[in-house]
Amino acid sequence: MRSVRRRSTSLTTESPSTVIDLATRRRTTRIFAKTPVEYEDVLYCVKAAAQAPSGANRQPWRFVLVDDPAMKERVRAACEEQEKRHHASVEASLRRWFMSKNITWQKPFLTEAPMLLAVFSNQEMPYATESTWLAIGYIILALEERSLSTLTYTPSYPENMRSVFKAPEEYALEAILPIGYSADSKPKEPRRPFQASLYRNLWNMKA
Amino acid sequence: MRSVRRRSTSLTTESPSTVIDLATRRRTTRIFAKTPVEYEDVLYCVKAAAQAPSGANRQPWRFVLVDDPAMKERVRAACEEQEKRHHASVEASLRRWFMSKNITWQKPFLTEAPMLLAVFSNQEMPYATESTWLAIGYIILALEERSLSTLTYTPSYPENMRSVFKAPEEYALEAILPIGYSADSKPKEPRRPFQASLYRNLWNMKA
Repeated sequence: MRSVRRRSTSLTTESPSTVIDLATRRRTTRIFAKTPVEYEDVLYCVKAAAQAPSGANRQPWRFVLVDDPAMKERVRAACEEQEKRHHASVEASLRRWFMSKNITWQKPFLTEAPMLLAVFSNQEMPYATESTWLAIGYIILALEERSLSTLTYTPSYPENMRSVFKAPEEYALEAILPIGYSADSKPKEPRRPFQASLYRNLWNMKA
Repeated sequence: MRSVRRRSTSLTTESPSTVIDLATRRRTTRIFAKTPVEYEDVLYCVKAAAQAPSGANRQPWRFVLVDDPAMKERVRAACEEQEKRHHASVEASLRRWFMSKNITWQKPFLTEAPMLLAVFSNQEMPYATESTWLAIGYIILALEERSLSTLTYTPSYPENMRSVFKAPEEYALEAILPIGYSADSKPKEPRRPFQASLYRNLWNMKA
Protein backbone atom coordinates (compact mmCIF):
# COMPACT_ATOMS: atom_id res chain seq x y z
CA MET A 1 0.00 0.00 0.00
CA ARG A 2 1.23 3.38 -0.98
CA SER A 3 2.02 5.92 1.67
CA VAL A 4 -0.95 8.01 2.62
CA ARG A 5 -1.15 11.46 1.09
CA ARG A 6 -1.41 14.00 3.82
CA ARG A 7 -2.25 17.59 3.60
CA SER A 8 0.67 19.86 4.16
CA THR A 9 0.46 21.63 7.50
CA SER A 10 1.65 24.83 5.90
CA LEU A 11 -1.06 25.15 3.30
CA THR A 12 -1.13 28.92 3.41
CA THR A 13 2.44 29.15 2.23
CA GLU A 14 1.96 26.70 -0.65
CA SER A 15 1.26 28.24 -4.00
CA PRO A 16 -1.93 26.94 -5.61
CA SER A 17 -1.88 24.54 -8.55
CA THR A 18 -3.17 25.27 -12.02
CA VAL A 19 -6.38 23.63 -13.19
CA ILE A 20 -4.48 21.34 -15.54
CA ASP A 21 -2.21 20.23 -12.71
CA LEU A 22 -5.17 19.47 -10.43
CA ALA A 23 -7.01 17.68 -13.25
CA THR A 24 -3.98 15.62 -14.20
CA ARG A 25 -2.98 14.70 -10.66
CA ARG A 26 -6.50 13.81 -9.60
CA ARG A 27 -7.39 10.13 -9.68
CA THR A 28 -10.29 8.04 -8.49
CA THR A 29 -9.79 6.44 -5.09
CA ARG A 30 -11.62 3.44 -3.67
CA ILE A 31 -9.37 2.83 -0.66
CA PHE A 32 -9.20 5.53 2.00
CA ALA A 33 -6.87 6.11 4.93
CA LYS A 34 -8.33 6.38 8.41
CA THR A 35 -6.84 9.89 8.73
CA PRO A 36 -9.69 12.22 9.66
CA VAL A 37 -10.86 14.84 7.21
CA GLU A 38 -11.09 18.48 8.27
CA TYR A 39 -14.70 19.58 8.21
CA GLU A 40 -13.51 22.94 6.89
CA ASP A 41 -11.98 21.29 3.80
CA VAL A 42 -15.34 19.82 2.81
CA LEU A 43 -17.02 23.17 3.40
CA TYR A 44 -14.44 24.71 1.09
CA CYS A 45 -15.45 22.35 -1.71
CA VAL A 46 -19.18 22.94 -1.21
CA LYS A 47 -18.54 26.67 -1.17
CA ALA A 48 -16.81 26.41 -4.55
CA ALA A 49 -19.67 24.29 -5.93
CA ALA A 50 -22.22 26.89 -4.82
CA GLN A 51 -20.54 29.37 -7.20
CA ALA A 52 -21.18 27.20 -10.26
CA PRO A 53 -23.54 28.33 -13.02
CA SER A 54 -26.88 26.52 -13.27
CA GLY A 55 -29.97 26.50 -15.48
CA ALA A 56 -31.73 29.84 -14.92
CA ASN A 57 -29.44 30.24 -11.88
CA ARG A 58 -31.80 28.02 -9.89
CA GLN A 59 -28.88 26.36 -8.00
CA PRO A 60 -30.71 23.02 -8.02
CA TRP A 61 -28.11 21.20 -5.89
CA ARG A 62 -28.31 20.09 -2.29
CA PHE A 63 -25.48 18.44 -0.38
CA VAL A 64 -25.69 16.10 2.57
CA LEU A 65 -22.41 15.71 4.40
CA VAL A 66 -22.38 12.36 6.18
CA ASP A 67 -19.96 11.83 9.04
CA ASP A 68 -22.09 9.88 11.48
CA PRO A 69 -20.82 6.27 11.42
CA ALA A 70 -24.32 4.80 11.87
CA MET A 71 -25.58 6.87 8.93
CA LYS A 72 -22.64 5.76 6.79
CA GLU A 73 -23.58 2.13 7.60
CA ARG A 74 -27.18 2.76 6.52
CA VAL A 75 -26.05 4.37 3.27
CA ARG A 76 -23.68 1.50 2.53
CA ALA A 77 -26.28 -1.16 3.28
CA ALA A 78 -28.86 0.50 1.04
CA CYS A 79 -26.35 0.91 -1.80
CA GLU A 80 -25.03 -2.63 -1.58
CA GLU A 81 -28.52 -4.09 -1.67
CA GLN A 82 -29.06 -2.25 -4.96
CA GLU A 83 -25.67 -3.19 -6.32
CA LYS A 84 -26.38 -6.89 -5.87
CA ARG A 85 -29.45 -6.51 -8.07
CA HIS A 86 -27.63 -4.30 -10.56
CA HIS A 87 -24.57 -6.52 -11.00
CA ALA A 88 -26.87 -9.39 -11.86
CA SER A 89 -28.51 -7.34 -14.62
CA VAL A 90 -25.80 -5.26 -16.39
CA GLU A 91 -24.97 -5.78 -20.04
CA ALA A 92 -22.01 -7.99 -20.91
CA SER A 93 -19.43 -5.32 -21.83
CA LEU A 94 -19.96 -3.39 -18.60
CA ARG A 95 -19.85 -6.62 -16.59
CA ARG A 96 -16.51 -7.49 -18.18
CA TRP A 97 -15.25 -4.01 -17.30
CA PHE A 98 -16.42 -4.44 -13.69
CA MET A 99 -14.61 -7.78 -13.48
CA SER A 100 -11.42 -6.44 -15.04
CA LYS A 101 -11.38 -3.68 -12.41
CA ASN A 102 -12.34 -5.96 -9.51
CA ILE A 103 -15.49 -3.94 -8.96
CA THR A 104 -18.12 -5.99 -7.16
CA TRP A 105 -21.40 -5.18 -5.40
CA GLN A 106 -19.41 -4.42 -2.27
CA LYS A 107 -18.82 -0.74 -1.53
CA PRO A 108 -16.58 -0.65 1.55
CA PHE A 109 -15.51 2.92 0.77
CA LEU A 110 -18.97 4.08 1.87
CA THR A 111 -18.09 3.29 5.47
CA GLU A 112 -14.28 3.49 5.30
CA ALA A 113 -14.04 7.03 3.97
CA PRO A 114 -14.14 9.49 6.88
CA MET A 115 -16.90 11.50 5.18
CA LEU A 116 -19.45 11.11 2.43
CA LEU A 117 -20.95 13.93 0.44
CA ALA A 118 -24.30 12.98 -1.05
CA VAL A 119 -25.26 15.24 -3.94
CA PHE A 120 -28.90 15.76 -4.89
CA SER A 121 -30.59 17.78 -7.64
CA ASN A 122 -34.08 19.22 -7.74
CA GLN A 123 -35.61 17.67 -10.84
CA GLU A 124 -38.24 20.39 -11.08
CA MET A 125 -35.56 22.89 -12.04
CA PRO A 126 -34.22 23.31 -15.60
CA TYR A 127 -31.07 21.35 -16.43
CA ALA A 128 -30.88 20.14 -12.81
CA THR A 129 -28.73 17.08 -13.50
CA GLU A 130 -26.41 18.88 -15.91
CA SER A 131 -25.87 21.83 -13.54
CA THR A 132 -25.27 19.56 -10.57
CA TRP A 133 -22.65 17.49 -12.37
CA LEU A 134 -20.90 20.66 -13.48
CA ALA A 135 -20.76 21.61 -9.79
CA ILE A 136 -19.38 18.13 -8.99
CA GLY A 137 -16.56 18.97 -11.41
CA TYR A 138 -15.76 21.99 -9.22
CA ILE A 139 -15.90 19.82 -6.09
CA ILE A 140 -13.48 17.19 -7.25
CA LEU A 141 -10.91 19.77 -8.33
CA ALA A 142 -11.32 21.55 -4.98
CA LEU A 143 -10.83 18.23 -3.15
CA GLU A 144 -7.64 17.60 -5.10
CA GLU A 145 -6.44 21.06 -4.18
CA ARG A 146 -6.83 20.05 -0.53
CA SER A 147 -5.02 16.74 -1.18
CA LEU A 148 -8.28 14.86 -0.65
CA SER A 149 -9.49 12.06 -2.86
CA THR A 150 -12.87 10.80 -3.92
CA LEU A 151 -14.86 8.65 -6.31
CA THR A 152 -17.96 9.81 -8.19
CA TYR A 153 -20.07 6.90 -7.02
CA THR A 154 -23.56 6.64 -8.47
CA PRO A 155 -25.95 4.21 -6.79
CA SER A 156 -27.70 1.90 -9.22
CA TYR A 157 -31.22 2.86 -8.17
CA PRO A 158 -30.87 6.39 -6.81
CA GLU A 159 -34.62 6.82 -6.41
CA ASN A 160 -34.48 4.23 -3.63
CA MET A 161 -31.93 6.32 -1.73
CA ARG A 162 -34.21 9.28 -1.09
CA SER A 163 -35.79 7.68 1.97
CA VAL A 164 -32.39 6.93 3.52
CA PHE A 165 -31.62 10.66 3.59
CA LYS A 166 -35.26 11.74 4.10
CA ALA A 167 -34.98 13.80 0.93
CA PRO A 168 -38.14 15.27 -0.64
CA GLU A 169 -39.77 13.66 -3.66
CA GLU A 170 -38.48 16.21 -6.19
CA TYR A 171 -34.82 15.58 -5.35
CA ALA A 172 -32.78 12.94 -7.19
CA LEU A 173 -29.57 11.55 -5.73
CA GLU A 174 -26.91 12.23 -8.38
CA ALA A 175 -23.82 10.87 -6.64
CA ILE A 176 -22.25 9.96 -3.34
CA LEU A 177 -18.69 11.20 -2.99
CA PRO A 178 -16.68 9.37 -0.32
CA ILE A 179 -14.03 11.78 0.88
CA GLY A 180 -10.69 11.08 2.51
CA TYR A 181 -6.96 10.75 2.02
CA SER A 182 -6.09 8.12 -0.54
CA ALA A 183 -4.54 4.84 0.47
CA ASP A 184 -5.23 3.43 -2.98
CA SER A 185 -2.13 2.33 -4.88
CA LYS A 186 -3.98 1.87 -8.16
CA PRO A 187 -2.62 4.22 -10.81
CA LYS A 188 -4.89 6.60 -12.65
CA GLU A 189 -6.87 4.98 -15.45
CA PRO A 190 -5.29 5.95 -18.76
CA ARG A 191 -6.91 8.71 -20.81
CA ARG A 192 -7.09 8.95 -24.58
CA PRO A 193 -4.88 11.76 -25.93
CA PHE A 194 -7.13 14.82 -25.81
CA GLN A 195 -6.58 15.47 -29.51
CA ALA A 196 -8.52 12.28 -30.24
CA SER A 197 -11.65 13.90 -28.71
CA LEU A 198 -11.32 17.24 -30.46
CA TYR A 199 -12.49 18.24 -33.92
CA ARG A 200 -12.44 21.57 -35.72
CA ASN A 201 -15.62 23.07 -37.21
CA LEU A 202 -17.04 19.71 -38.28
CA TRP A 203 -17.05 16.18 -36.93
CA ASN A 204 -13.88 14.23 -37.72
CA MET A 205 -12.03 17.33 -38.94
CA LYS A 206 -8.61 17.52 -37.34
CA ALA A 207 -8.23 20.36 -34.82
CA MET B 1 -19.44 48.87 -21.10
CA ARG B 2 -16.74 47.62 -18.79
CA SER B 3 -13.20 47.54 -20.03
CA VAL B 4 -12.31 44.30 -21.69
CA ARG B 5 -10.48 41.77 -19.57
CA ARG B 6 -7.27 40.87 -21.26
CA ARG B 7 -4.94 38.10 -20.54
CA SER B 8 -1.76 39.16 -18.91
CA THR B 9 1.19 38.95 -21.21
CA SER B 10 3.32 37.57 -18.43
CA LEU B 11 1.20 34.56 -17.57
CA THR B 12 4.12 32.38 -16.66
CA THR B 13 5.14 34.67 -13.84
CA GLU B 14 1.61 34.92 -12.40
CA SER B 15 0.85 32.56 -9.60
CA PRO B 16 -2.22 30.41 -10.22
CA SER B 17 -5.51 31.01 -8.43
CA THR B 18 -7.18 28.64 -6.02
CA VAL B 19 -10.31 26.77 -7.12
CA ILE B 20 -12.49 28.91 -4.86
CA ASP B 21 -11.03 32.08 -6.38
CA LEU B 22 -11.65 30.86 -9.93
CA ALA B 23 -15.16 29.68 -9.02
CA THR B 24 -16.04 32.96 -7.29
CA ARG B 25 -14.59 35.22 -9.95
CA ARG B 26 -16.12 33.32 -12.84
CA ARG B 27 -19.36 34.71 -14.21
CA THR B 28 -21.53 34.01 -17.22
CA THR B 29 -20.87 36.24 -20.20
CA ARG B 30 -23.20 36.96 -23.11
CA ILE B 31 -21.28 39.88 -24.65
CA PHE B 32 -17.81 39.19 -25.99
CA ALA B 33 -14.98 41.46 -27.07
CA LYS B 34 -13.61 41.12 -30.58
CA THR B 35 -10.16 40.36 -29.13
CA PRO B 36 -9.04 37.07 -30.68
CA VAL B 37 -8.69 33.98 -28.51
CA GLU B 38 -5.45 32.04 -28.52
CA TYR B 39 -6.06 28.59 -29.96
CA GLU B 40 -3.66 27.21 -27.38
CA ASP B 41 -5.86 28.49 -24.51
CA VAL B 42 -8.81 26.46 -25.77
CA LEU B 43 -6.59 23.41 -26.18
CA TYR B 44 -5.53 23.88 -22.56
CA CYS B 45 -9.16 23.67 -21.42
CA VAL B 46 -9.93 20.60 -23.52
CA LYS B 47 -6.75 18.97 -22.21
CA ALA B 48 -7.96 19.52 -18.65
CA ALA B 49 -11.42 18.15 -19.52
CA ALA B 50 -9.88 15.00 -20.99
CA GLN B 51 -8.50 14.21 -17.50
CA ALA B 52 -11.94 14.13 -15.90
CA PRO B 53 -13.37 10.89 -14.51
CA SER B 54 -16.22 9.28 -16.46
CA GLY B 55 -18.56 6.31 -16.19
CA ALA B 56 -16.40 3.18 -16.60
CA ASN B 57 -13.67 5.57 -17.85
CA ARG B 58 -15.31 5.58 -21.28
CA GLN B 59 -14.52 9.28 -21.83
CA PRO B 60 -17.82 9.80 -23.66
CA TRP B 61 -17.13 13.43 -24.62
CA ARG B 62 -16.27 14.91 -27.99
CA PHE B 63 -15.47 18.56 -28.59
CA VAL B 64 -15.90 20.56 -31.77
CA LEU B 65 -13.99 23.82 -31.75
CA VAL B 66 -15.68 26.24 -34.12
CA ASP B 67 -13.71 29.20 -35.40
CA ASP B 68 -14.84 29.35 -39.02
CA PRO B 69 -17.17 32.39 -39.34
CA ALA B 70 -19.45 30.65 -41.83
CA MET B 71 -19.82 27.69 -39.49
CA LYS B 72 -20.59 30.01 -36.56
CA GLU B 73 -23.35 31.58 -38.70
CA ARG B 74 -24.82 28.15 -39.44
CA VAL B 75 -24.74 27.20 -35.75
CA ARG B 76 -26.39 30.47 -34.75
CA ALA B 77 -29.10 30.21 -37.41
CA ALA B 78 -29.96 26.64 -36.37
CA CYS B 79 -30.06 27.57 -32.68
CA GLU B 80 -32.17 30.68 -33.18
CA GLU B 81 -34.70 28.80 -35.25
CA GLN B 82 -35.13 26.41 -32.30
CA GLU B 83 -35.20 29.21 -29.75
CA LYS B 84 -38.12 30.90 -31.51
CA ARG B 85 -40.13 27.71 -31.14
CA HIS B 86 -38.94 27.15 -27.57
CA HIS B 87 -39.67 30.66 -26.29
CA ALA B 88 -43.22 30.29 -27.54
CA SER B 89 -43.66 27.09 -25.51
CA VAL B 90 -41.86 27.49 -22.13
CA GLU B 91 -43.75 27.40 -18.88
CA ALA B 92 -44.74 30.72 -17.30
CA SER B 93 -42.14 30.94 -14.52
CA LEU B 94 -39.22 30.30 -16.88
CA ARG B 95 -40.67 32.78 -19.38
CA ARG B 96 -40.82 35.44 -16.64
CA TRP B 97 -37.20 34.69 -15.76
CA PHE B 98 -36.18 35.01 -19.44
CA MET B 99 -37.95 38.38 -19.66
CA SER B 100 -36.43 39.65 -16.41
CA LYS B 101 -32.98 38.83 -17.78
CA ASN B 102 -33.68 40.20 -21.27
CA ILE B 103 -33.08 36.74 -22.71
CA THR B 104 -34.79 36.37 -26.08
CA TRP B 105 -34.59 33.85 -28.93
CA GLN B 106 -31.65 35.82 -30.31
CA LYS B 107 -28.21 34.37 -29.61
CA PRO B 108 -25.73 36.91 -31.00
CA PHE B 109 -22.93 35.48 -28.85
CA LEU B 110 -22.86 32.45 -31.16
CA THR B 111 -21.33 34.57 -33.90
CA GLU B 112 -19.75 37.35 -31.82
CA ALA B 113 -17.59 35.14 -29.60
CA PRO B 114 -14.28 34.45 -31.37
CA MET B 115 -14.67 30.70 -30.79
CA LEU B 116 -17.34 28.19 -29.92
CA LEU B 117 -16.76 24.88 -28.25
CA ALA B 118 -19.56 22.43 -28.95
CA VAL B 119 -19.62 19.58 -26.43
CA PHE B 120 -21.14 16.22 -27.32
CA SER B 121 -21.62 13.01 -25.35
CA ASN B 122 -21.95 9.46 -26.60
CA GLN B 123 -25.29 8.32 -25.24
CA GLU B 124 -24.36 4.66 -25.64
CA MET B 125 -21.85 5.04 -22.80
CA PRO B 126 -22.75 4.83 -19.10
CA TYR B 127 -23.44 8.17 -17.39
CA ALA B 128 -22.49 9.99 -20.60
CA THR B 129 -24.35 13.21 -19.81
CA GLU B 130 -23.23 13.31 -16.17
CA SER B 131 -19.58 12.69 -17.03
CA THR B 132 -19.60 15.27 -19.79
CA TRP B 133 -21.07 18.00 -17.58
CA LEU B 134 -18.48 17.22 -14.92
CA ALA B 135 -15.85 17.78 -17.62
CA ILE B 136 -17.59 21.06 -18.56
CA GLY B 137 -17.02 22.10 -14.93
CA TYR B 138 -13.29 21.58 -15.51
CA ILE B 139 -13.45 23.58 -18.74
CA ILE B 140 -15.11 26.64 -17.31
CA LEU B 141 -12.63 26.86 -14.43
CA ALA B 142 -9.76 26.43 -16.90
CA LEU B 143 -11.21 29.21 -19.08
CA GLU B 144 -11.42 31.49 -16.05
CA GLU B 145 -7.81 30.69 -15.26
CA ARG B 146 -6.91 31.98 -18.73
CA SER B 147 -9.10 35.09 -18.19
CA LEU B 148 -11.56 33.81 -20.78
CA SER B 149 -15.32 33.86 -20.33
CA THR B 150 -18.15 31.68 -21.49
CA LEU B 151 -21.79 30.73 -21.12
CA THR B 152 -23.04 27.16 -20.82
CA TYR B 153 -25.55 27.53 -23.62
CA THR B 154 -27.86 24.59 -24.24
CA PRO B 155 -29.84 24.60 -27.48
CA SER B 156 -33.53 23.89 -26.99
CA TYR B 157 -33.67 20.91 -29.34
CA PRO B 158 -30.12 19.55 -29.32
CA GLU B 159 -31.08 16.51 -31.41
CA ASN B 160 -31.62 18.88 -34.33
CA MET B 161 -28.05 20.17 -34.04
CA ARG B 162 -26.35 16.88 -34.90
CA SER B 163 -26.68 17.43 -38.64
CA VAL B 164 -25.14 20.92 -38.42
CA PHE B 165 -21.94 19.39 -37.05
CA LYS B 166 -22.30 16.10 -38.99
CA ALA B 167 -22.16 14.25 -35.68
CA PRO B 168 -23.07 10.56 -35.56
CA GLU B 169 -26.45 9.38 -34.33
CA GLU B 170 -25.23 8.22 -30.91
CA TYR B 171 -23.86 11.64 -29.93
CA ALA B 172 -26.00 14.22 -28.14
CA LEU B 173 -25.08 17.88 -28.11
CA GLU B 174 -24.83 18.82 -24.44
CA ALA B 175 -23.78 22.47 -24.70
CA ILE B 176 -22.22 25.11 -26.88
CA LEU B 177 -19.67 27.24 -25.05
CA PRO B 178 -18.97 30.57 -26.75
CA ILE B 179 -15.44 31.56 -25.74
CA GLY B 180 -13.86 34.98 -25.60
CA TYR B 181 -12.88 37.92 -23.44
CA SER B 182 -15.84 39.40 -21.63
CA ALA B 183 -17.24 42.77 -22.62
CA ASP B 184 -20.32 42.09 -20.50
CA SER B 185 -20.89 44.57 -17.70
CA LYS B 186 -23.63 42.50 -16.06
CA PRO B 187 -22.59 41.48 -12.55
CA LYS B 188 -22.58 37.84 -11.51
CA GLU B 189 -26.01 36.49 -10.65
CA PRO B 190 -26.28 36.24 -6.88
CA ARG B 191 -25.80 32.84 -5.23
CA ARG B 192 -27.57 31.53 -2.15
CA PRO B 193 -25.20 31.26 0.82
CA PHE B 194 -23.67 27.81 0.45
CA GLN B 195 -24.80 26.84 3.95
CA ALA B 196 -28.40 26.96 2.69
CA SER B 197 -27.63 24.05 0.33
CA LEU B 198 -25.79 21.91 2.85
CA TYR B 199 -27.21 19.48 5.38
CA ARG B 200 -25.52 17.10 7.80
CA ASN B 201 -26.34 13.39 7.86
CA LEU B 202 -30.04 13.92 7.11
CA TRP B 203 -32.08 16.31 5.02
CA ASN B 204 -32.73 19.65 6.72
CA MET B 205 -30.22 18.98 9.51
CA LYS B 206 -27.93 21.94 9.92
CA ALA B 207 -24.33 21.31 8.82
